[in-house]
Amino acid sequence: MSGGLTLKDVIWATPLYKFLRHCNSSPLEKIVLDCGAGGDDPPLQLFHEYGYRTYGVEVADNPFQQAKQFCKEHNIALNILKGDMRHLPFKSQFFSFAYSFNAIIFMTKQDIAHSLREIERVLRPTGLCFVNFVSVDEPTKGSFCKPFLGNTKFSQHEDNEADSYFSNFDIIHKEKRIVEKTTNRKRSVQVYIDYIAKKKTEPRDRLRLESESLTEE
Amino acid sequence: MSGGLTLKDVIWATPLYKFLRHCNSSPLEKIVLDCGAGGDDPPLQLFHEYGYRTYGVEVADNPFQQAKQFCKEHNIALNILKGDMRHLPFKSQFFSFAYSFNAIIFMTKQDIAHSLREIERVLRPTGLCFVNFVSVDEPTKGSFCKPFLGNTKFSQHEDNEADSYFSNFDIIHKEKRIVEKTTNRKRSVQVYIDYIAKKKTEPRDRLRLESESLTEE
Repeated sequence: MSGGLTLKDVIWATPLYKFLRHCNSSPLEKIVLDCGAGGDDPPLQLFHEYGYRTYGVEVADNPFQQAKQFCKEHNIALNILKGDMRHLPFKSQFFSFAYSFNAIIFMTKQDIAHSLREIERVLRPTGLCFVNFVSVDEPTKGSFCKPFLGNTKFSQHEDNEADSYFSNFDIIHKEKRIVEKTTNRKRSVQVYIDYIAKKKTEPRDRLRLESESLTEE
Repeated sequence: MSGGLTLKDVIWATPLYKFLRHCNSSPLEKIVLDCGAGGDDPPLQLFHEYGYRTYGVEVADNPFQQAKQFCKEHNIALNILKGDMRHLPFKSQFFSFAYSFNAIIFMTKQDIAHSLREIERVLRPTGLCFVNFVSVDEPTKGSFCKPFLGNTKFSQHEDNEADSYFSNFDIIHKEKRIVEKTTNRKRSVQVYIDYIAKKKTEPRDRLRLESESLTEE
């Protein structure tokens, strides 16, 4: 991202493109939230580049400061706030789209369940979310260097275990990825389970949507 | 791709972004080949947009004509030729990068082996290729509508079976993807195995590369 490169020259993690493709196909307003949005090269740039109004929350100090610095240096308003995805500082149904990429995995399963309820709350009916999990099949059973939000190990999920977080969603795309990388003759295996889910329309929302569409006609 | 959209607004199949990211990290010249490059929206556009010199071969009439029409209408020189990936119409070591996405799966395993040897031939030492396969775990066991190159069913591969095609490559990224999609309450499962592999440097190439680097100094 430094020197002569433009934003366009960065190729982001591929699941983000998959989610962006689903968002682009939705008729909802282009407004997106990243939960765990910090770091020195915030992925919200991808959505910003495609014309989305972006917001992010980041709970950890260092990645938050890095993201702030990045936005200042590049004069780009990604709207990344210091905040916690277990208590999102946004009113209900504020977003059309929300995602958490390689972030929710650091939390306990109880906190993951809280966060998914928060993501559901801030999403509009038929809004889309993307969340990825680490599978129990990942052999490393990785623990962190220092405790994070009271957790010390990646939360790992069985193939269908995370389905339960999405009871008020329709799961429209689910992808288990078994990734083997070899770098300098060292082989590593990572196993993810990615979800793209659409928030269900509740009966009261259906009535409201129908009356709005009547008004518009 | 019609109307007011620019090329940038298309989001391509995500494995192509993964391959592009690897290609962008290579020091080799930006010249890429797509084997099975036809259709009404050729994915070579992605590489063209990122500054690559592009070439493609397409063996089937209809997708070839569609691609030709696309390039004419959009005044874009993707260089897609009528040709067969089992006998690539290019001299050895012409390309830095080559890929075949959702195409090689239509061929018999014998023809796949031929094609991989051709891809290897046209790649420079340390050149990269991307190829994806359908896993034996895919439940559909899909057959085509009409025979293609003497084949009537997708060739399906065991987890490590396709490794043998890459004996003169280092496999640097291998990803098995179990994809569940739900559209209009209909659930489908597709299982792919993606490879990104780097062509090995043979002893005679190493000598040549060393002498070239001496000359340059």
